[in-house]
Amino acid sequence: MELFKQFKVFQKQQKAYGMVLSIASWDSNTEAPKKCFPHRAEMLSIISGEHFSLMTSKDYQEVVNALIERIDEFDTLKKKEIITAKKALDKIVKIPKEEYVEYSKLINISQRIWEDAKEQDDYDIFKPYLKRIIEAKKQHIAYRTDQNDKYNVLLDDFEEGMSMELYDQFFGAIKEELVPFVKTVLEKRKDTDDGFITDTYDKATQKDFVEYLMEVFDYDYDRGLLKESVHPFTWNTHSQDVRFTVRYLENFVFSSIFAAIHELGHALYEQNIDPALDMTNLNGGASMGVHESQSRFYENMIGRSKAFWEAHYPKLQAMFKTQLRDVSLDDFYRGINKVDETFIRVEADELTYPLHILIRYEIERMIFDEGVDLEELPSIWNAKMKQYLNIEPTKDSDGLLQDVHWSAGMFGYFPTYALGSAYAAQIYYTLIKEIDFERLVRENNIEEINQWLKEKIHCFGSTKKPLEILEMVTGEAFNPSYYIQYLKEKYSKLY
Amino acid sequence: MELFKQFKVFQKQQKAYGMVLSIASWDSNTEAPKKCFPHRAEMLSIISGEHFSLMTSKDYQEVVNALIERIDEFDTLKKKEIITAKKALDKIVKIPKEEYVEYSKLINISQRIWEDAKEQDDYDIFKPYLKRIIEAKKQHIAYRTDQNDKYNVLLDDFEEGMSMELYDQFFGAIKEELVPFVKTVLEKRKDTDDGFITDTYDKATQKDFVEYLMEVFDYDYDRGLLKESVHPFTWNTHSQDVRFTVRYLENFVFSSIFAAIHELGHALYEQNIDPALDMTNLNGGASMGVHESQSRFYENMIGRSKAFWEAHYPKLQAMFKTQLRDVSLDDFYRGINKVDETFIRVEADELTYPLHILIRYEIERMIFDEGVDLEELPSIWNAKMKQYLNIEPTKDSDGLLQDVHWSAGMFGYFPTYALGSAYAAQIYYTLIKEIDFERLVRENNIEEINQWLKEKIHCFGSTKKPLEILEMVTGEAFNPSYYIQYLKEKYSKLY
Repeated sequence: MELFKQFKVFQKQQKAYGMVLSIASWDSNTEAPKKCFPHRAEMLSIISGEHFSLMTSKDYQEVVNALIERIDEFDTLKKKEIITAKKALDKIVKIPKEEYVEYSKLINISQRIWEDAKEQDDYDIFKPYLKRIIEAKKQHIAYRTDQNDKYNVLLDDFEEGMSMELYDQFFGAIKEELVPFVKTVLEKRKDTDDGFITDTYDKATQKDFVEYLMEVFDYDYDRGLLKESVHPFTWNTHSQDVRFTVRYLENFVFSSIFAAIHELGHALYEQNIDPALDMTNLNGGASMGVHESQSRFYENMIGRSKAFWEAHYPKLQAMFKTQLRDVSLDDFYRGINKVDETFIRVEADELTYPLHILIRYEIERMIFDEGVDLEELPSIWNAKMKQYLNIEPTKDSDGLLQDVHWSAGMFGYFPTYALGSAYAAQIYYTLIKEIDFERLVRENNIEEINQWLKEKIHCFGSTKKPLEILEMVTGEAFNPSYYIQYLKEKYSKLY
Repeated sequence: MELFKQFKVFQKQQKAYGMVLSIASWDSNTEAPKKCFPHRAEMLSIISGEHFSLMTSKDYQEVVNALIERIDEFDTLKKKEIITAKKALDKIVKIPKEEYVEYSKLINISQRIWEDAKEQDDYDIFKPYLKRIIEAKKQHIAYRTDQNDKYNVLLDDFEEGMSMELYDQFFGAIKEELVPFVKTVLEKRKDTDDGFITDTYDKATQKDFVEYLMEVFDYDYDRGLLKESVHPFTWNTHSQDVRFTVRYLENFVFSSIFAAIHELGHALYEQNIDPALDMTNLNGGASMGVHESQSRFYENMIGRSKAFWEAHYPKLQAMFKTQLRDVSLDDFYRGINKVDETFIRVEADELTYPLHILIRYEIERMIFDEGVDLEELPSIWNAKMKQYLNIEPTKDSDGLLQDVHWSAGMFGYFPTYALGSAYAAQIYYTLIKEIDFERLVRENNIEEINQWLKEKIHCFGSTKKPLEILEMVTGEAFNPSYYIQYLKEKYSKLY
């Protein structure tokens, strides 16, 4: 139909702008020289402004709204494209362009300010920016709804269908079950000989091992690229171009390896999306939560399993003879699954990780739903750390200044990290009923697991909602008890 | 003035599009995965189309034309910005947008076709595309002028002020003086023990040496980046972001090293341009010829001089002990300046290089000014090789299929390669009168030479015309006899 054709022309145009902005951002985050940024920021704000104008133009709005009125005339896929477009439109259409551009600039500056604040361990530097970002976010929400549940809007933006009510249940279970379980585990801790974890591993060999892992997991280099950057991340424009980055740390080799497998999980998801969706607005993963479920699945369920290292530990041992010669597979497996109280989320083990997210969720909820004096944030943060993990940071750079997210305006994002891990556990219990997971991993046949995940989850891109996919795969609604069960089973055996 | 402000807004907008397209092209030419290209081409053609629309919009035309009418009201710099804009506008304004987009696509496809043709050594694959490109170029020229001297338009596009008349004089001198001189040199050739040239040098150490050279030449990494790619090239958006690539060949180490110094010359030029010009349309080098004069100056006058290797040969020798232990500095110097008949331009030595360009100039002149049957090109090419270099290629991939330029529509570009070398020689004879060049090079004080070139040439960006700069620096008009003199002096000593 003519109208839908027009819609596709608009969509392609917007996509083209998105793509060049995305390539510029890849460049900025991996290799652009530091002095290029002032000019670059000025230039990119012009292109972003044009992008915004296209995404909110009267002509485009008319087409989308006309299609929505006739939505029943379209097949499922087109319907979904139209609805997704309408949702994206509603999200931004009421924001005045100047405010949008102003906010983009604020976000850009704030991230640099946050870096300084973190480096100088000085929350006061960041606080005024945090305040402005929160005010802007609240204003953006006010443009979209006159309801009072502002935080729900943000939660739904990152994970369609999720709300404070559902997250309260989820984090309630974590608080009730995991907080005491973590305490028990930590009490059982013994002094073990795991010095190999912090030993020195040369970067070049780490790189070789990660490249070996890419083969193990069947990553497609013809449609991707593995590169180094300060913070690991995955990047994609469509299924034919999905890249990710790794950071090699000489004295933290397992951080390098597991971050690599984590990003690889994100990347495999994107590479496995049906290429027919490439040029539509449905070509990315279903949600942050589903994405995280895949990265966590690869990182934890596969990467931190004993079966996996039965297959690959000899290789690693051969590559790092001095460091691992005297470390048995059992000791190695215990080492890479060591539970510990840590200040830093990204360094946390699989078991304590959700408690780090719990803290962030509760604070974001306070900011957007309950009201809180920003002055108090450091002490609130520290008290929660004490309550859940029994340690207290002595500096804010180990506390509420540790993550980039808030400086980038990403409120509502953190909860999806824990949610994704919980999705992963629920998916895991289905998967092990259907295929002989442990044997496949042990026999280095990841291919078959990839295939299962591709058919059940990846291929759909964002043609389905997150909770819909979960129910399709597992046959039931989201149920956090699988996550609790998984962690308790695994760590009861270990401790 | 209001009108000029409007002009700057338009200019910045165009620049922003130019920048994102440029970043995408950097990505495409260095690391983008091969399967991304079909979607990418489609998306980029949308952005290119928008860019073209902006560059030729009625509003913009009006502003530029109004400024031209009042040109005397502006200071020198603004005057130059306006004139440069007007010239750029006239170049494309009469091309219909569809034709422009069509031509861009043709160029994109043709380059891939050319690659195939070269690989399969089959001119017939490429011929129909070459024909279409030539027709399109002629049509573009017809939009701009009703004069008959089509090739002059192309020559002037790449090197303002140059024409067939001037190039005929230049290449006439080369034919008259250099062709016989090369013959004499080649006759004097003896069998020397220069096997070290084609020895195997491991890539990692080559890379270390090139990184060492970056320090020697004082390349600024805060405003740049050194990377690998299949074909070395320099890339820049403004003086704060100037990158270049190197290709390391295990059995052709001197190609890697001198290509690196060559690109470095281009890069230093761009980094040294007055940053006040960054956001204007005058922020690039003055012309292709002046650019090439700088890359050739660094590559040949510095890089292939004996003084340079007096300073750095011990370092290279220490890095490649096995290969160079028994090679004296004298033998090394002779080796890197070895004269030989070769089919391939990019592998040619400094002395025979201009003869390769002469052939291309004469053929382009035939195509655009005299008329020639494309069927005949291979035999014409081969006959000229025989005439000037006394060798005849047995396959077209060693002949007229060797260069990418024609498949990219770049006719009129080749002559600037020889012209740049001639500029370099003329500049060289001025420079050695003003500073103690040889001593500075020998004492590893390139900094002072950089400074001289920066003040005399680089800093001006394209605020001055090429022949104007040459006259400013050397005190006289372009004079090819310096080039002949330089080559005869150098190679008479060597042979």
